Amino acid sequence: MCPYRLVLEHVTSRWGVLVLIELLDRSYRFSELRRAIGRVSEKMLTQTLQTLERDGLVHRDAKPVIPPRVDYSLTDLGREAAEQVRGLALWTSERMTDVEKARQTYDEARALQTRAS
Amino acid sequence: MCPYRLVLEHVTSRWGVLVLIELLDRSYRFSELRRAIGRVSEKMLTQTLQTLERDGLVHRDAKPVIPPRVDYSLTDLGREAAEQVRGLALWTSERMTDVEKARQTYDEARALQTRAS
Repeated sequence: MCPYRLVLEHVTSRWGVLVLIELLDRSYRFSELRRAIGRVSEKMLTQTLQTLERDGLVHRDAKPVIPPRVDYSLTDLGREAAEQVRGLALWTSERMTDVEKARQTYDEARALQTRAS
Repeated sequence: MCPYRLVLEHVTSRWGVLVLIELLDRSYRFSELRRAIGRVSEKMLTQTLQTLERDGLVHRDAKPVIPPRVDYSLTDLGREAAEQVRGLALWTSERMTDVEKARQTYDEARALQTRAS
């Protein structure tokens, strides 16, 4: 497997996409980000953020205060990735009507074939 | 899950990415496409093509000849998706040096932390 495939998998993973898109707006604390994304477990969000941090896409800023405060933001590299991913996500959501029409046509043709055979 | 997430998963799946990028150049017969992509099983490639066909991204053209001949090409919708996916894949492969540097820094910092604790 080409090494870049893994990075592509990270940025297009279910939670990777949502984290990158949220962070395009502003930096977030962990709990805020979790609420903004919704339905993601603490463990999955932690893993996603660690992977993106290790790839150099997300910056983790742990402030030495009490109670501890950790902010997550995009690095310059992460912003580039996030803009591409947002473009693809926007395209996909804009074209859902076409995709759904195509699926209906495909499923109807399949059903006809099944009945005919 | 938003319905567009599934389409995003299809176009960014391991084999989905490679199929879309190959088909940007020209149409392919199944066996040619399998050789061009490499290391993909017949079953996985069949599934990937069926998914993309059902989403309206790939056109399957079965010619009524003997021996049977089936060509796969991009639809207009598929070409739009493929161009976006290629952009993201190109970005990722161009930025791999930065990603690898970031990983090295991250892993070294982790190793220091582990030794210190």
